[in-house]
Amino acid sequence: MYRLTVRDHFMIAHSFNGDIFGPAQRTHGATYVVDVTFQRRELDDDDLIVDIGLASETLSTLLAEFNFQNLDDLEEFQGRNTTTEFMARVIFERLAAAIAAGRLGDSGRGLEALTVTLHESHIAWASYEGELQ
Amino acid sequence: MYRLTVRDHFMIAHSFNGDIFGPAQRTHGATYVVDVTFQRRELDDDDLIVDIGLASETLSTLLAEFNFQNLDDLEEFQGRNTTTEFMARVIFERLAAAIAAGRLGDSGRGLEALTVTLHESHIAWASYEGELQ
Amino acid sequence: MYRLTVRDHFMIAHSFNGDIFGPAQRTHGATYVVDVTFQRRELDDDDLIVDIGLASETLSTLLAEFNFQNLDDLEEFQGRNTTTEFMARVIFERLAAAIAAGRLGDSGRGLEALTVTLHESHIAWASYEGELQ
Amino acid sequence: MYRLTVRDHFMIAHSFNGDIFGPAQRTHGATYVVDVTFQRRELDDDDLIVDIGLASETLSTLLAEFNFQNLDDLEEFQGRNTTTEFMARVIFERLAAAIAAGRLGDSGRGLEALTVTLHESHIAWASYEGELQ
Amino acid sequence: MYRLTVRDHFMIAHSFNGDIFGPAQRTHGATYVVDVTFQRRELDDDDLIVDIGLASETLSTLLAEFNFQNLDDLEEFQGRNTTTEFMARVIFERLAAAIAAGRLGDSGRGLEALTVTLHESHIAWASYEGELQ
Amino acid sequence: MYRLTVRDHFMIAHSFNGDIFGPAQRTHGATYVVDVTFQRRELDDDDLIVDIGLASETLSTLLAEFNFQNLDDLEEFQGRNTTTEFMARVIFERLAAAIAAGRLGDSGRGLEALTVTLHESHIAWASYEGELQ
Repeated sequence: MYRLTVRDHFMIAHSFNGDIFGPAQRTHGATYVVDVTFQRRELDDDDLIVDIGLASETLSTLLAEFNFQNLDDLEEFQGRNTTTEFMARVIFERLAAAIAAGRLGDSGRGLEALTVTLHESHIAWASYEGELQ
Repeated sequence: MYRLTVRDHFMIAHSFNGDIFGPAQRTHGATYVVDVTFQRRELDDDDLIVDIGLASETLSTLLAEFNFQNLDDLEEFQGRNTTTEFMARVIFERLAAAIAAGRLGDSGRGLEALTVTLHESHIAWASYEGELQ
Repeated sequence: MYRLTVRDHFMIAHSFNGDIFGPAQRTHGATYVVDVTFQRRELDDDDLIVDIGLASETLSTLLAEFNFQNLDDLEEFQGRNTTTEFMARVIFERLAAAIAAGRLGDSGRGLEALTVTLHESHIAWASYEGELQ
Repeated sequence: MYRLTVRDHFMIAHSFNGDIFGPAQRTHGATYVVDVTFQRRELDDDDLIVDIGLASETLSTLLAEFNFQNLDDLEEFQGRNTTTEFMARVIFERLAAAIAAGRLGDSGRGLEALTVTLHESHIAWASYEGELQ
Repeated sequence: MYRLTVRDHFMIAHSFNGDIFGPAQRTHGATYVVDVTFQRRELDDDDLIVDIGLASETLSTLLAEFNFQNLDDLEEFQGRNTTTEFMARVIFERLAAAIAAGRLGDSGRGLEALTVTLHESHIAWASYEGELQ
Repeated sequence: MYRLTVRDHFMIAHSFNGDIFGPAQRTHGATYVVDVTFQRRELDDDDLIVDIGLASETLSTLLAEFNFQNLDDLEEFQGRNTTTEFMARVIFERLAAAIAAGRLGDSGRGLEALTVTLHESHIAWASYEGELQ
């Protein structure tokens, strides 16, 4: 199995609901360093997993929607806690849709699985891994 | 699949038995930087994999039993080599028991698997991964 | 010259004023991974630069005042931009005052200089370095 | 499951064929920081996954064949693009053959799988993972 | 003293002249992860050391001249060894000139010193530090 | 000013004397990841700060004297605490003597200063910096 990972980041504000979050119920924020891992069984005709330039660009465009935002203000996240693990899944779904729409090229359609990891600090990170259709 | 990792560390002395270990048969030591990865299929009602505060605290308490010890002095390790991979398993078993005992809360019982990674230097690390009951 | 560094982190929300900040004028946030470097010419009687336990604890207590806050709400930062470099100086001043007040012990008074570095991402960090009185 | 990883590196020149590579069609180069992960279900009689000294030495010897080379000059790579993912597979195959030939000792034959990861920069890395016979 | 660092990278081929270089006399290559540190005594009116967007962009443009090149082919490096330390100085001089030419804005003229660090692997890096006019 | 850093590591046991050390008064151990920074004003005739192969080899030989030792057993450290900062100085003195003895070659005599940094964990490190004669 082949895997390629690219790294980027975004910076957001948010707050959490629920006693379990303690002081994190207040409006605070995070830098999320994002690692996206693309997985496929065989390389394409260019000996690539995916066009790394296209992959980095697509990721960057997608993260720009969240970068420098207060996630509490976004309609789609109402009633949810935008935890690190939750956001990993959100970015997974967006990237999976982008791949299905052909934004990583024809070769991108050969990708079989994706892992999105968000590092919230030097001592904590979370990921979501799923298969692609 | 969702995964959350938290990092901590502990510092121990030990020695190894067997010619294969060469100079490491002498009493020496290591800093182990520990990464514990908690895995579950779906997030809990708070959009969490596990209460990260509780997880970090439980790990820290558990590592405190080994921290600043000479592992050669501990009854339970007699006749074994406390290699990096061996200690990864030891910590896995302790954490698995703590989770089963409810120390990561009710939600912690939803965890399905655990990986414990011990970094012994910038160029070597070992892990043990297993399912939870 | 001897130097000792300890690492911690805090997570905040804030916004910036001025066209130069572009989208960062919106409320967003950051994880700041903090490295504090203590400097002195000679070791103390215990062969230490400073009591590392006391140093880590003092830093953690100090960062707790900012952790999980929206810096825009804090009186003392009105009219300023709480940039990474600005916050490095703020933490420097607080630590310098704590050291002068004896919170790092008698030996802590032997410290000659301090550097505070805040990492805002894997590709950007800022620091403030100054002498102690 | 137990896993042990050792890290090394090598430095090469190469060029790529195909419009998709843009400026990387020119002769350029890379430092590849290499992580090799050895996997087995149970520890051996010494409480080891593999003799780490032997594993590091074998890896180093193997990488020396490529280190300080222009990969474009090597017969075996004619007609292929020596991308990061392609080279991860090449090193996997070499190591798998070395293990089968007993170069990691008798215990090395108990290894079940291998992952080879090549880091090409702080923001991109690729790996190949496969089972051993 | 305030310092801000930004990170980028470039990938090149080259060869060295002189017996001291051993196998590195052959055409090989490197990924250079580049850290540039901007230094000034006081923050500007926006509470900044330098406009980080402008600084990153200027660095990226400058590195693009070397990225995906065989340094042996460049006129300006004839008769020199393009070692890591040598290239750190080259990039320092280019950036210093860009700053003097106002490419980091008016505020950029307040910068007093610059350090350029090139990481050639996980175990070796070199830097050049100098004052600005 | 030019600086070159090389990284290596060693693993030791030791114990500390003094109430200030708490549980670290017991026999425990550490992995020290060692960064040595060589400094000089101008490059030598090969465009080098120092022969990096010779520097790495000299460092490795020097660290081998301490590697896999219980520092409490070494005559020279009786009555001292072998703290991270203390050991940074010890390695500095050894390297400075090696350089003075010509073990880094003629060019090595052009070195002006040296910094030795010992990382004891992902959250703590210490260094000693001094001039060379």
